[in-house]
Amino acid sequence: MGAPPGYRPSAWVHLLHQLPRADFQLRPVPSGFAPREQEYQQALLLVVALAGLGLGLSLVFIAVYLIRFCCCRPPEPPGAKSTPPGGGCVTWSCVAALLVGCAGIGIGFYGNSETSDGVSQLSSALLHANHTLSTIDHLVVETVERLGEAVRTELTTLEEVLAQRTELVAATRGARRQAEAVAQQLQGLAFWQGVPLSPLQVAEDVSFVEEYRWLAYVLLLLLELLVCLFTLVGLAKQSKWLVVVMTAMSLLVLVLSWGSMGLEAATAVGLSDFCSNPDTYVLNLTQEETGLSSDILNYYFLCNQAITNPFQQRLTLSQRALANIHSQLQGLEREAVPQFPSAQKPLLSLEETLNVTEGNFHQLVALLHCRGLHKDYGVALRGLCEDALEGLLFLLLFSLLSAGALATTLCSLPRAWALFPPSDDYEDTDDDDPFNPQESKRFVQWQSSI
Amino acid sequence: MGAPPGYRPSAWVHLLHQLPRADFQLRPVPSGFAPREQEYQQALLLVVALAGLGLGLSLVFIAVYLIRFCCCRPPEPPGAKSTPPGGGCVTWSCVAALLVGCAGIGIGFYGNSETSDGVSQLSSALLHANHTLSTIDHLVVETVERLGEAVRTELTTLEEVLAQRTELVAATRGARRQAEAVAQQLQGLAFWQGVPLSPLQVAEDVSFVEEYRWLAYVLLLLLELLVCLFTLVGLAKQSKWLVVVMTAMSLLVLVLSWGSMGLEAATAVGLSDFCSNPDTYVLNLTQEETGLSSDILNYYFLCNQAITNPFQQRLTLSQRALANIHSQLQGLEREAVPQFPSAQKPLLSLEETLNVTEGNFHQLVALLHCRGLHKDYGVALRGLCEDALEGLLFLLLFSLLSAGALATTLCSLPRAWALFPPSDDYEDTDDDDPFNPQESKRFVQWQSSI
Repeated sequence: MGAPPGYRPSAWVHLLHQLPRADFQLRPVPSGFAPREQEYQQALLLVVALAGLGLGLSLVFIAVYLIRFCCCRPPEPPGAKSTPPGGGCVTWSCVAALLVGCAGIGIGFYGNSETSDGVSQLSSALLHANHTLSTIDHLVVETVERLGEAVRTELTTLEEVLAQRTELVAATRGARRQAEAVAQQLQGLAFWQGVPLSPLQVAEDVSFVEEYRWLAYVLLLLLELLVCLFTLVGLAKQSKWLVVVMTAMSLLVLVLSWGSMGLEAATAVGLSDFCSNPDTYVLNLTQEETGLSSDILNYYFLCNQAITNPFQQRLTLSQRALANIHSQLQGLEREAVPQFPSAQKPLLSLEETLNVTEGNFHQLVALLHCRGLHKDYGVALRGLCEDALEGLLFLLLFSLLSAGALATTLCSLPRAWALFPPSDDYEDTDDDDPFNPQESKRFVQWQSSI
Repeated sequence: MGAPPGYRPSAWVHLLHQLPRADFQLRPVPSGFAPREQEYQQALLLVVALAGLGLGLSLVFIAVYLIRFCCCRPPEPPGAKSTPPGGGCVTWSCVAALLVGCAGIGIGFYGNSETSDGVSQLSSALLHANHTLSTIDHLVVETVERLGEAVRTELTTLEEVLAQRTELVAATRGARRQAEAVAQQLQGLAFWQGVPLSPLQVAEDVSFVEEYRWLAYVLLLLLELLVCLFTLVGLAKQSKWLVVVMTAMSLLVLVLSWGSMGLEAATAVGLSDFCSNPDTYVLNLTQEETGLSSDILNYYFLCNQAITNPFQQRLTLSQRALANIHSQLQGLEREAVPQFPSAQKPLLSLEETLNVTEGNFHQLVALLHCRGLHKDYGVALRGLCEDALEGLLFLLLFSLLSAGALATTLCSLPRAWALFPPSDDYEDTDDDDPFNPQESKRFVQWQSSI
């Protein structure tokens, strides 16, 4: 019984929601979702700033490492071997880092598709809710028009036909009053008419933003994949210019990775705050945007046994009025038709209208019940707070892995580069001479690395 | 207006549905979904057999290639270089094949998770439908009991209190008749009562099978990942025993890949036949399993404007009877209470019961409307025919990639193995001697491969 199983915050939401938040003066900020408060905005910006700090630290670390490597080389031993020790280790650590980066790219593609799935669930739920709301409006308008038409034509004809018997005219007038009462009650049911907020517009906006977010991530992932592949090719071919270009590209992608990590972390933190208690925020926001009464919004957003249907009274009154019209029409058919055969046609037409109105009324009862719209709300929340958040966490893992892998690559590439033969045109030397000392030295490096 | 946008067969469904099917005698089989017909079963088994044929062909190819390589070596030139040409090429093609295999594993993980998503959508839609159906039953039972209780107690008390005035007793009896009529009409609405098919049971069965399918794929993917990684380690370390073990494991995984490919292809073909026109099959199957009338099943499975609500008549009659009870109670309150003050208590209690019954009635109207259950049907179909089918196609791609990669690896590994130094203990030789002819020869192999 009761509402179907709804949305429950996941363990990730609880975990992220419990992380401490602070503003720019490092004073703690409550972790309720309040995107319009300056304090809360500062807390999210601080999360982005942390990623900036991480980028700065990793750049400083890489710079210090490379300066130490360039300027503080140990004095070379006077023997025949002039290669710095651990050269193969450097190349292989670079290769391992690139493989970790590739694994991260796979995780990133998965996370991107998960996030996209979640957001498309949200927008399809919004579209479905829009469909329900517009169907309610449409049904009400159609039914009210049909009733008005019946009052204007058939009931007027009937009154004219039955003009000789006042008690029958009174019954007809009673039916007219009831029909007008039903039309008035039904008009009150089109609660979304004239509301400035359109779920369709929101769904389109969300899809638009999501499309560009998805594309941006795909481009970033492809860029990183190309950098990884060409770096591997550069290492395998020992091509100096390729390695130099890829070092510069790795630096660019490192900056992009840290930047995306900041955005993902801030979004994940904000989303976890929203998802830990979405009802209050969504209720307040919707009330602000639509101006609807809190009765109606509570009914649809909470939809539990404790909250009565705010349209119950109107529905019951319409239902009773429809039943009264029916009994009055039946009475008229019994009394009037034998005496006034010309009354039969408008009476049959009225009964037809009544049947259609009752059908529409049942459809309205079904559409106005909170089940349908509340289910859309649940789907939207699950899309946002389960799939999209999970996708974001995978994207965060991708950013972390790729930042780590790229930092390692940036430390290793110049060292690997230094191990390459002095010129790019070594292909011209005699490859077939196994006693070529240059080749043999490089082979020892490879050997020690395997 | 109308039903919300429902399920549409995707391009993949159309494509797979148009593939020709044949039975064991290679006679064409119509591509309608008919899993109980022997012809159709044979067509699906033939798809599985095609994968078996693929496995056989690739094993024959690998055997022929290796026998040719072992027995028909070109006579070695008499110079210092005794290495067969293209040794490095063999190693690198092996590495490239393993990388393709790893990419395939990534695709497989994605496909496995998509399929799992689709099936979990199906089972959650079934759970939701079960919830709706059991809520309808529960509401009907509760309302009928409440009405019966009111007839037994309050209406009987009222009749006793008003016994002196026969016209009031007649009105009370009229209300009793109406209440009994409502109870009878409502009982006809619990259409799922006593139906032997439980969506809950189906959902549990589906989840159970899916859990094991998911686990089996994860194990297969992990096994192949391990084989890829250890083969790479074996190649890098030039460890003969590791390469031999991994050759055997590759053969095992090759067989498993072709086997899973056959199952996936047959499932995808069957699913595409089901998904190209699911309504007819599901309607027939449900009618067979539940014995419900085709009116009701058509209403819920098709849910369009052309099909009228099969409960419309019952709902309208109940609604009119409820309105009649209301007007009779109001009449009694007006007429009887001034004369018989003791009638007020049972009358108030009856009005309370009437209000609750009207509330339950509106909930029943909402639950019985086809929107909710048809939406569950649409979600189940989209889960099965979009997400699960897409996941299956990704799994198929994984199987294809891994079969190709493993066949290449199986061709290359013994050749790479032949290029390794004769004993595993080469680490004991003097690594530091760049003029060691053995090392130099191996370096030339590496060199030509880079």
